[in-house]
Amino acid sequence: MNQSNQEIHRAVIIGGIHGDELTGVYITKLFEQNPHLIQRPSFETLTLLGNPKAFAEGRRYIHHDLNRVNMDDLQNLELRSNEDRQARLIIEILKPKNNSQTSIFVDLHSTTANMGLTLILIKLDPFLLQLAAYLSSINPLVKVLYIQSDEEDSFLISQCELGFAVEVGSVPQGVLSADLFQKTEKLIYEILDYVEAFNQGSISLKNDTLTLYQHVGTIDYPRNEHGEIQAMIHPNLQFKDYEPLNPGQPIFLTFEGKTITYEGKSTVYPVFINEAAYYEKGVAVCLTEKQQISV
Amino acid sequence: MNQSNQEIHRAVIIGGIHGDELTGVYITKLFEQNPHLIQRPSFETLTLLGNPKAFAEGRRYIHHDLNRVNMDDLQNLELRSNEDRQARLIIEILKPKNNSQTSIFVDLHSTTANMGLTLILIKLDPFLLQLAAYLSSINPLVKVLYIQSDEEDSFLISQCELGFAVEVGSVPQGVLSADLFQKTEKLIYEILDYVEAFNQGSISLKNDTLTLYQHVGTIDYPRNEHGEIQAMIHPNLQFKDYEPLNPGQPIFLTFEGKTITYEGKSTVYPVFINEAAYYEKGVAVCLTEKQQISV
Repeated sequence: MNQSNQEIHRAVIIGGIHGDELTGVYITKLFEQNPHLIQRPSFETLTLLGNPKAFAEGRRYIHHDLNRVNMDDLQNLELRSNEDRQARLIIEILKPKNNSQTSIFVDLHSTTANMGLTLILIKLDPFLLQLAAYLSSINPLVKVLYIQSDEEDSFLISQCELGFAVEVGSVPQGVLSADLFQKTEKLIYEILDYVEAFNQGSISLKNDTLTLYQHVGTIDYPRNEHGEIQAMIHPNLQFKDYEPLNPGQPIFLTFEGKTITYEGKSTVYPVFINEAAYYEKGVAVCLTEKQQISV
Repeated sequence: MNQSNQEIHRAVIIGGIHGDELTGVYITKLFEQNPHLIQRPSFETLTLLGNPKAFAEGRRYIHHDLNRVNMDDLQNLELRSNEDRQARLIIEILKPKNNSQTSIFVDLHSTTANMGLTLILIKLDPFLLQLAAYLSSINPLVKVLYIQSDEEDSFLISQCELGFAVEVGSVPQGVLSADLFQKTEKLIYEILDYVEAFNQGSISLKNDTLTLYQHVGTIDYPRNEHGEIQAMIHPNLQFKDYEPLNPGQPIFLTFEGKTITYEGKSTVYPVFINEAAYYEKGVAVCLTEKQQISV
């Protein structure tokens, strides 16, 4: 079902690629101390803390965003920032030991947006789509976000055939939500159990449907000529990730109290609404289109 | 009503003493661009961005916490960290121009804890108590937290006769909540209007009561021998700031899923529950006792 349709030999679970997203950090610590939780008979599971130095300092990154490195630049070994070094280490770990080995890579993130348990796919791999359809069928909190990748793609999940991210929220950076921790932990067991069942041949191809939210663009905050933001996410939109936003509905509220409406031509489904780390990236919301697809 | 019982000549409003607490930062920007909003006939109002460099970098501080400086150390002019310099600047601004001048100082903060609109007092000044009683009588979101100060006190509000903090939440660091922004803005107008009425002599001493939450201690996260935390705030306690916590009730949940209960001897009222910035300070919750006092 994965493109080579072969058994999966390894699962790699990484938390804390952003050092202040604590859910993933402490889940990998839990698994390091209790490896039986993630052991399954037919494959091995590795865990890794993605950016230990950023975690120690309570920051997203030290020099630059580890999940936005330019893969070509990494060839230049003179680039030795903390994140360049960590990216090379993670890519080395993700590399298959030989051509016949297949790994699945689960990259754990958290967000201040109300995105529940979001699976982020960057390619429509049949195995990952079946997995996503299964997980969203058993848990209504699971949503599936598709961000189409291109060659310049800089997410670390692009470095693994079966790589995807789990984005949980809302939770502030630097904070542990026990509720989301336990929901994420349970989701990981469901993923590992699915892989085990797949390897055992006990999952049959189903003609199933999946609700996919496809990323189609972003909207920045209104800014003045100095780049300073002039408005906030409107209270009506706050925490409404994955809900429809229609033309004419409020999107921003200026500091002076004036409402700014969404001026697009059709209904969209915003996500990453008011994500703390995206202020500096010029992103107030990401827009998606909702699709039903057969998998 | 303040200890010298004299007219108030000046209000100083500072936001962003912690650079990632955006509510205060953008409220001071709003006031800078619209000074008429904070002008009142009988006194002047100043606004200031507390830690511009930390704000520019999206961090609480650059070198150390600006709201925890040792005032004696500041005399040593060889200490020139970003926060040492900012602290000296703020203290200079707070200094009365002559002995007969009285200032009120409003220090704007935000928290990931669910603390509504909390006024933090570090001394029981009669004027501030009357102000607090008034504000909490017109708005149920307003709570009054008393943290007894001593000579070693390092909050910047200690440097002004009528200094107090406004702590709003819950909101993640690095995020603007339009709802809390507008509530904070309204609270500031109510404070300024009260000062104006006081100066005009139109506030009479009332024999009023006030609910005061007095800080009596803190509890740290359970940690292992390496200082790593071993548990999270229990879901039953999360967002329950100012609600009673009785002995035997859940306070933490370990990563393995075991509940840890509160083992104190009497009912307390926790605040700053799961505040992001306090993980590094060894504080999971602050405990308070609830009191009714006459003001």
